[in-house]
Amino acid sequence: MASNSSPVVDIHTHMYPPSYLAMLEKRSTIPIVRSFPGADEPRLILLEAEVENLEKAGADAAAGLPGRPLTSHYASLAQKLHFMDTHNIDISVISLANPWCDFLDRTTAAAQTRAINDEFSAMCAAHPGRLYFFATLPLTAPIDDLLAAVRDLPSLEYCRGVILGTSGLGAGLDDPALLPIFTALGASNLPVFLHPHYGLPNDMWGPRASAEYGHVLPLAMGFPMETTIAVTRMFLAGVFDAVPALRMILAHSGGTLPFLAGRIESCIMHDGHLVAEGKTGPGRRSLWTVLKEQIYLDAVVYSPVGLRAAIEASGSDRLMFGTDHPFFPPLESDPQGEWESVSLNAEAVIKAVGEGTEEAKGIMGANAARVLRLTGK
Amino acid sequence: MASNSSPVVDIHTHMYPPSYLAMLEKRSTIPIVRSFPGADEPRLILLEAEVENLEKAGADAAAGLPGRPLTSHYASLAQKLHFMDTHNIDISVISLANPWCDFLDRTTAAAQTRAINDEFSAMCAAHPGRLYFFATLPLTAPIDDLLAAVRDLPSLEYCRGVILGTSGLGAGLDDPALLPIFTALGASNLPVFLHPHYGLPNDMWGPRASAEYGHVLPLAMGFPMETTIAVTRMFLAGVFDAVPALRMILAHSGGTLPFLAGRIESCIMHDGHLVAEGKTGPGRRSLWTVLKEQIYLDAVVYSPVGLRAAIEASGSDRLMFGTDHPFFPPLESDPQGEWESVSLNAEAVIKAVGEGTEEAKGIMGANAARVLRLTGK
Repeated sequence: MASNSSPVVDIHTHMYPPSYLAMLEKRSTIPIVRSFPGADEPRLILLEAEVENLEKAGADAAAGLPGRPLTSHYASLAQKLHFMDTHNIDISVISLANPWCDFLDRTTAAAQTRAINDEFSAMCAAHPGRLYFFATLPLTAPIDDLLAAVRDLPSLEYCRGVILGTSGLGAGLDDPALLPIFTALGASNLPVFLHPHYGLPNDMWGPRASAEYGHVLPLAMGFPMETTIAVTRMFLAGVFDAVPALRMILAHSGGTLPFLAGRIESCIMHDGHLVAEGKTGPGRRSLWTVLKEQIYLDAVVYSPVGLRAAIEASGSDRLMFGTDHPFFPPLESDPQGEWESVSLNAEAVIKAVGEGTEEAKGIMGANAARVLRLTGK
Repeated sequence: MASNSSPVVDIHTHMYPPSYLAMLEKRSTIPIVRSFPGADEPRLILLEAEVENLEKAGADAAAGLPGRPLTSHYASLAQKLHFMDTHNIDISVISLANPWCDFLDRTTAAAQTRAINDEFSAMCAAHPGRLYFFATLPLTAPIDDLLAAVRDLPSLEYCRGVILGTSGLGAGLDDPALLPIFTALGASNLPVFLHPHYGLPNDMWGPRASAEYGHVLPLAMGFPMETTIAVTRMFLAGVFDAVPALRMILAHSGGTLPFLAGRIESCIMHDGHLVAEGKTGPGRRSLWTVLKEQIYLDAVVYSPVGLRAAIEASGSDRLMFGTDHPFFPPLESDPQGEWESVSLNAEAVIKAVGEGTEEAKGIMGANAARVLRLTGK
């Protein structure tokens, strides 16, 4: 994928540093790392959708193991670099994977996220020009500590933004209490990489899902729907108007936002309540404008159909390639080789905009290098 | 929009016949029709998301009215025909609007849905060639009565399929108990028009939604997400394989299915549980195949971005224009004139495939006329 003139950049690539995994090993509820007798590797159990399987596995050894095997891909920097080399990725902007530090204790959160950000900084410093990172915020800390943590980010040499889930301070990203955070991030030119974790309630998947459909429904539907809802709530709350410098990078090509933007706009203009409140009309900044001026989309959508819609919605100069490593490893070929979850997205770029075109170079890395100020080697 | 050679067909257009509205007037919970002092028209309250506003309106007259005004557009056939004439629609395939008869008593459901289908038949017979309909099923009736109702549908001259929500018999559309119903519908060449109603739980919209965002979130996000989940559950349960003759028309261009199909496919091929169960691999019928062979999409997506994705996913010979009348009336112009909710979708067709092209004629009516055997005047 690489070329001399244009770098390949992976902006959607996660790690759980060893200190984070040690934290999960001590927990008794999801997210959790747990060992099971007879299993070669401990299991990493992240999603609430797995709660039933976790309970079963405790009671019945034959019920199958919950979660996924905790391979070296999750915590090893050497493995990350090997993965980058295997896929010709020049630069990775790494981030802590979900659920980040959303569950930390109020009193220790700021110190713990600071330690994690320092751990990421050290990894980047060990491989200058190959690694940058999105920082983690102490969302459960007192608001002044949280704001101090945000103001401290520009001092971290390799930090290029923050990764954020959808819970905010507990009331979602449309919570007015977050505006000072967004304002500080915008002022420092640090984008928010918005990433899902909480999905939708388990009962949306029906009585057959847990036994028969694996993780497909929460991952394939819950995740992108959560992202779409979160950013639409921000839009309706006027966050993008209130913080014009705010930039968001949306995981999974915006969840479903490019496809639904038309319906959202139509629902707004046809809503009796919003019309009565004066929240519609010609002067209103539309979602299409926000998509083209304040939002970037990763290119992790696994099809040219989705990718073309994302490009049409935001512009090919606002799409950024990603892998979602270490998630979605190949199950029937060597995980040290090429990953189909990566090639699906790389091939979608070629199918959508052609191989070697300026648009393809932009999506594969040049856009990220420009927007995130990645200077490379 | 009309042309002599190719009809304009509206396949997504609803009515609440007077007998149905009389039923809602007698109810004490949503769905409900209720009059409020000082309001010109009774209010039609359909969505669970409105439950808080309904309670407030009962206690506090100044709180604003829940639901929407019950105008003549909902029940009047003359109004439907006027709407068709205003928008140059040659043929409408009308259907009962949500939540249909999902809430009926077990013992009376079959007789009540039969009466409603007879009411629709009489409307069609009064305007032969201009009106056809999708029938309503007595889903809460004993299964034998339900199956008998399905087997009776081909005797209804103007019936061209059924409209179905996502609840099925109470356990969703991936319930194996529904297979005989889908088989009977497939054998009679009667497609299922899959339409959302239940959306997502209210707490997904956050604490600000009910007071500040009108109906936007449940309508713009909850509806299409519900559809996507329902059809993906059917796909994972193997319903499309088990009933090869089944044809589904998905409301709102599939909810978000065209955009998410790539992610769904990737999640399936990377799911350890499904791989272990032998449910993945080269022989498996993919969602893309189902989209192109068993699924049709309406063209109610309100943007060329969404419409192009829908066309790419299913093919321009599988898209069908719709209006969603009587929902989304213009709020700031005469509702007897042109509706922007209609022109947005008609313009999206022109922007996506060009004006007057074969593809445009197909989407605007020829596809529906062919697939649903609409002979016109």
